Amino acid sequence: MPKRGIVMVFTGSGKGKTTAALGTAFRALGYNMKVLMVQFIKGSWKYGELTSAKAFKNFELIPMGEGFTWVTKNRVRDVQKAREAWEFAKQRISSKEYDLVILDEINYATKYGFLNPVEVIEFLRTKPVQVHVILTGRDANQEVIDFADLVTEMREIKHPFKQGIRAQRGIEF
Amino acid sequence: MPKRGIVMVFTGSGKGKTTAALGTAFRALGYNMKVLMVQFIKGSWKYGELTSAKAFKNFELIPMGEGFTWVTKNRVRDVQKAREAWEFAKQRISSKEYDLVILDEINYATKYGFLNPVEVIEFLRTKPVQVHVILTGRDANQEVIDFADLVTEMREIKHPFKQGIRAQRGIEF
Repeated sequence: MPKRGIVMVFTGSGKGKTTAALGTAFRALGYNMKVLMVQFIKGSWKYGELTSAKAFKNFELIPMGEGFTWVTKNRVRDVQKAREAWEFAKQRISSKEYDLVILDEINYATKYGFLNPVEVIEFLRTKPVQVHVILTGRDANQEVIDFADLVTEMREIKHPFKQGIRAQRGIEF
Repeated sequence: MPKRGIVMVFTGSGKGKTTAALGTAFRALGYNMKVLMVQFIKGSWKYGELTSAKAFKNFELIPMGEGFTWVTKNRVRDVQKAREAWEFAKQRISSKEYDLVILDEINYATKYGFLNPVEVIEFLRTKPVQVHVILTGRDANQEVIDFADLVTEMREIKHPFKQGIRAQRGIEF
């Protein structure tokens, strides 16, 4: 039986989506797998993971995205940046150079119509079979959930900002 | 304002609890923080994270726990091992040597009565203020949820085992 790559989705309103993807990368790197993480929305990565990633020659992080429409108020540019990230990710997945590719915050891009979820699924259906893919971001499209092998919803039960506790450097929840 | 350590809980039936804790560790290590992960239930760690952890001199993983009662059928020993892990973790948290301490699968130990959740909370209430603590495991006690600053429930929406896909080495969902 050939190795079968898994499509995983980490979604929901709670903390831990990108963090669980990072943890999966960390584990995969320990098996000497090659990992690529592509950022679809700017600003979600912290200095901490960028620094830690340097400890692993097999781990590449590529920031590609732009900010949100409601910040930049430039939807044409948002769509263009999301498409660039997607074209890049497709090319890298197809190259078979990576064992695991993380499409970080791609669920935002499909939710806000920067990318068509059906196009994303159609590509993943025909990707090289051995490549594992993780899609993160809240509000994953139902089509993406239906297609994925593993889906975890991170539900926010309690968040410190709402209790007046400020963010902590190094933890960055 | 002094640095204030956060108490985080990753719970629920879905995948990503220990993985999100690992991702948080990975990020914190990038800020040159010192991280300790104590294992309360044997067998939850994979070769992958044990290997990756070696890339960081500031990351210690200490396996302490025993298996489950329903496997070992030796509750006295389970309780004894959980208590040993807890005494060790308390001593390490109190030492102020670590910026982040992960109590991996401790929620199992409190759920099954190996440890008293009230005792855990009472200790965390009086711990050195700057130390961040993460508690993982499904079915976190309500008292622990009430006490924590941040709680994410990882909800299983879809799991590959139920779709006949076998576990993949290196991904280990």
